[in-house]
Parts: sequence; C-alpha cells; structure tokens
Amino acid sequence: MPAKLEDLGEREIIRRIKDLLGEAELGIGLGDDTAAIPLGDSYLLVTTDLMVRKTHIPESMTPFQTGWYITAINLSDIAAMGGEPLGFLVALGLPREMEYEDLEQCVLGMENCCSEYGTEILGGDTKESEEFTLAGTAIGTVPKESILLRSGSRVGDQVCVTGPLGRAACGYFALMRGLNLDDCISALLAPRPRVREGMALSSAGSVTACMDISDGLASSLHQMTELGGSHFKIAYEEIPKSQDLTAFPDIPQEDLVLYFGGDYELVFTVRKDGMEDVRQTLERAGSRLWRIGEVIESEENVLEMGGERRPLPNRGWEHLSPASLKSFKY
Amino acid sequence: MPAKLEDLGEREIIRRIKDLLGEAELGIGLGDDTAAIPLGDSYLLVTTDLMVRKTHIPESMTPFQTGWYITAINLSDIAAMGGEPLGFLVALGLPREMEYEDLEQCVLGMENCCSEYGTEILGGDTKESEEFTLAGTAIGTVPKESILLRSGSRVGDQVCVTGPLGRAACGYFALMRGLNLDDCISALLAPRPRVREGMALSSAGSVTACMDISDGLASSLHQMTELGGSHFKIAYEEIPKSQDLTAFPDIPQEDLVLYFGGDYELVFTVRKDGMEDVRQTLERAGSRLWRIGEVIESEENVLEMGGERRPLPNRGWEHLSPASLKSFKY
Repeated sequence: MPAKLEDLGEREIIRRIKDLLGEAELGIGLGDDTAAIPLGDSYLLVTTDLMVRKTHIPESMTPFQTGWYITAINLSDIAAMGGEPLGFLVALGLPREMEYEDLEQCVLGMENCCSEYGTEILGGDTKESEEFTLAGTAIGTVPKESILLRSGSRVGDQVCVTGPLGRAACGYFALMRGLNLDDCISALLAPRPRVREGMALSSAGSVTACMDISDGLASSLHQMTELGGSHFKIAYEEIPKSQDLTAFPDIPQEDLVLYFGGDYELVFTVRKDGMEDVRQTLERAGSRLWRIGEVIESEENVLEMGGERRPLPNRGWEHLSPASLKSFKY
Repeated sequence: MPAKLEDLGEREIIRRIKDLLGEAELGIGLGDDTAAIPLGDSYLLVTTDLMVRKTHIPESMTPFQTGWYITAINLSDIAAMGGEPLGFLVALGLPREMEYEDLEQCVLGMENCCSEYGTEILGGDTKESEEFTLAGTAIGTVPKESILLRSGSRVGDQVCVTGPLGRAACGYFALMRGLNLDDCISALLAPRPRVREGMALSSAGSVTACMDISDGLASSLHQMTELGGSHFKIAYEEIPKSQDLTAFPDIPQEDLVLYFGGDYELVFTVRKDGMEDVRQTLERAGSRLWRIGEVIESEENVLEMGGERRPLPNRGWEHLSPASLKSFKY
C-alpha cells in the first residue's frame, strides 16, 4: 500500500532515503546533519536547514529573529562537528505582499548572527513563493583529526552538556500562555549556537562524540545510539535546568527538560581522563561543563531519576509525526 | 511609504540587500550567484537555489524531474564559474499528505543528476511544510587563476554560447498548448547544466567572463554589464536557435530566443586570439562553440537584427515582478 509521509514520520523517511542512496563515497555524508568533505588536512563542513513561515515560525517571532534563527540553527550544525564557520548563504522564498522593511530586518538578523560568530553572509537566492521560506546553508572547516561526530563514544566516557536544558520549551509555553518570561522566550526565538564551545571541544582531543540538542536530549542520545551503537545512562538530577520550569507546575518537568528540544546546547561524551582538561578548555572559551551521565554497557539508554532507574524513552520533536505534535499539547 | 516586494521586483530587492550588507570581506560574495571562498590555491564555490511547488513546478513536471531540476540549476551555477562539483545537499519542506513514492522518485532524480555530472548527494534536511519545497546547495572548486566571473569582458572579446536558445521557452508554450514537442519539453523540465563545458572554458585561459542563461540571454548580458561595465553587440541571426520555434508562429521569435530564459546554456566572452583554442577545447569536451556577438565600446547593449541595429532591452524573467509575468502571456 502506498504510504503517505505522515504515516512514516521524519526519522523513518530519512532512514529509507539513506537506504535508497547507500553510503556517500565522498566524505561522511548523510549520517550526521552536516556533510564533511575531505580537503587537504581539513574537512569542509556543509549543512542546510529550512524554515517555512506557517509551520516553523511562531507569530511572535520578529523578522529580525527569523533571520537570526535560520542562521543560528545552521551554525549550530557546524558547531556540533567542532567546525569554524566560513560563511552563510540563504535562499529565500518571498511572498509578493511582504513588506520590504521586514525582509531588510530579516537580513539584518542573519548578518548580526553571522557577525556574532565571526562569519558573514556570502550569497543567496530569491524566489517568489506564497509562504515566506528561508533555506540556510552554513559552511565551515575543521582539522581532520579534530572532527566531532555523533558516533565514537566508548563505555566509561562521561556524558556532558554545555548549558541548561528546557529553556526553549519554557519559552514556547510562555508564549502560548502569554507569560512574560523574556529569558526563555529569547532562548526559543533567538537561540545561541555553541560555536566557540564546539571549537573548544574539538581542540581538546578527548571528546569522543558530539551533537546539538535541537530535537531534545532524549532524542539526541537515541540518534547517537543509532549511529554509534553506544548506550547512555543519564542522571536526571544532575542536568542543568532552566530557572523558569517552576512557571509551569502542570507540565511534567521531564517533558520540558528531556523531550521538547529547541535548546541548541551541545551534548557530548568525554574520555574520563580528559574531563579536567575539557573543563578548563570550556572555561577558557567563556563557558562551562556540566556532567550529566556516562556511557554504559547496556541494551538500552537509561534514566536515573528520584533514586529509580528506568529506560529513557526515544521521544522528542519529530517533523511529520502526528504523535510528536500531540504529545506536547498542554 | 513602505514598499511591498512586488512593487520592487527581484533585481531591485537584491540591489538593496547588497547595499545593506556591503561587500563581503571574505571571498567574492553576492555579485555572482555563487559564493567563492579562497582556500589554498583554489576557490571553494557554494551556491543555493530554491523551488516551491506552487510557484515554480509545472503540473506536468514529474517528481523525478523535480529532483533533477533542483540539482541541475544548482550545478549550473557551479558550471558558470568553471567549477568542478564536489557535492550536493538538499533541504526539503514536505507536506504530510505527500506520497512517499513521490519523494523517493524525487531523490532518485537528484541522485541521477549528481551522478551524470560526477558528484553525489552529501546530506540534507527534512521539515514539514504545506507546499513541497526544495532548497538545493551545490559546492565545487576551481583553481584560483581559472575562476570565471560575470565581470572581466574587454572591448573586442567575442560573445559566445554553448548551445541553442529558446528550447525551454518552446517547451513552456508546448505544455501550455498541449503540443507533443518532447525535446523542448524535456529541455524545460530536465535542463542539462553545462558542467563539462564550464570546466573546459575555465581551463582555456582566454575566457574573460561567463554566466548561465537562466533568466534569458538579454537579462544575462545586462547583468554582466551591471557587474563588469562592458557592453555587448549581439547578431540575432548568428544565435543558435531551437528547432521548435516554428511551432509558435504567433509568438514573437525574439521573446522565445532572447527573453524567456530557462535554457541553462552558458554565455561567455573570449579574447579574440583565443577563439580557436576555446573552440577546440569545447570540442574535446564533446560540445561546440557558437559566436553570437562581441564586446563593444558603447553606452548600451545592442542587437543587430534584419540589417538593423537597436538597443537590446533589459527584459527577461524576473521573480516578484508583475510586469515580467504579464510580458510572457500569449
């Protein structure tokens, strides 16, 4: 029977397309979000990400924030591999009735985000479309021996993150409910990609795997399991959390912290003997290290919470999946 | 008074955005469609192009052709700079109700086009959207001394093209009128980017400027004038033309040949003393050279036609411009 995309969900669709295409002969290819092409002593990193007004842009996101956002999420993919950004391009689908002023603000948002992370807008394309559409492409480089992939974790490695989780989720529900929680709303609408942190981690030498947490911590860890075969034990109490969680007493806290996503922090694994070095490296980059678990010998990913140990569900934001949408309605 | 995008048209919008951003510090940037970033002895070329179902994909374009098309138009931008393709990425906006089979055909179209031009799909992104949306990114490299830009033509250089013009226009009107003109319909729906020709031209050493003819010959020449300051005299009778023009006796032939666009041939200028060398180089690449005019000392671009000499209008396909749409209604 012919299947519609909504019957499959994003991850099954990607799995099928990967099977269809086989392994890329050149570079690292479809496993990670970002392609890595060997070029001398470095990998060239190229990534692309799309936003469409109606499905991805909240009403309250300003044109400036929209431009910032499409840039930030692409730079985050470069950051997750430890790359230094080289530039950003954008293909824009523009509605006829859009105000030029809004487009200008959007471009300024992109430029500001590029400039904040030491790079710039290199080019683009404009087309007409009914829905405002932004397709960003970020490029970067990383020395071959320093590239960070989603696979590579070994039993005993420590699982760490670069910052508090649940901020974007709180921002989302604050907007839904009209609460003035500026910090988390800004975390949702103008996320800060961990570019400096990614570069610091790749230089440290003892980081064994890394990815960004765009779809939520649980989903990210399961994607790392799928690609690298490792399993993770997470200590819920050790996860750094948004200070705004208390504003939503009716929403299960784990939903905000583990499953909702949108935070764009990095989750990574570190060889145990490298923890002190990585801690210092991140501090020199103006950031810090939070240890939240470890890589274990196991058949499944597990969550320790309130003294109990249970399986960590593979649940998180998934495009084209009706179950994913319904599971975050409060 | 605030302006809407349809009041400005695509080229004015891009001009304003370029003013807003200033010159890129790194690489060649926004003038050409493709960004060129210095990397050792080469330029890294990166380009991005967008298609949206409703506004850009004719009803009769199959999913396979759609995938081919988004790949081909991006590779054409690499070809126009003389680059060798390194890979292709695609960000897809997917409607829930889309059949998986159609997506698979689309991906196979991309893969076939990549494979035809010696490259491959390196990665991508999928998102949900109401309209099927494809944002392609092609990357390539070209030796620094061989890069082809839109600027660089000098008075006396010969203006040439890689193949017949008007084929895509004939394909468009054949579809509108239900005519079975398979060759030109296929030229419209599955254009063949001039990748081998672009690489041959860049290796020749006497090609002074180049671009692809996606928006029509007249528009391409005016864009070259805007960037490089040169002016062109085109001999209409010398332009190689689609054999299907005779099927549309009621449509002014120049509209099909000069203004409609969609052919994805290359237009380029050659130093007079290099013509024979370029002719042989193109023949070795399995193609041929058509001379259609020359670079002249003038205040405007001119067209010689039927023994008369008149200004070549700056008319062609332009997104977001109502005048552009209306001017091709027959």
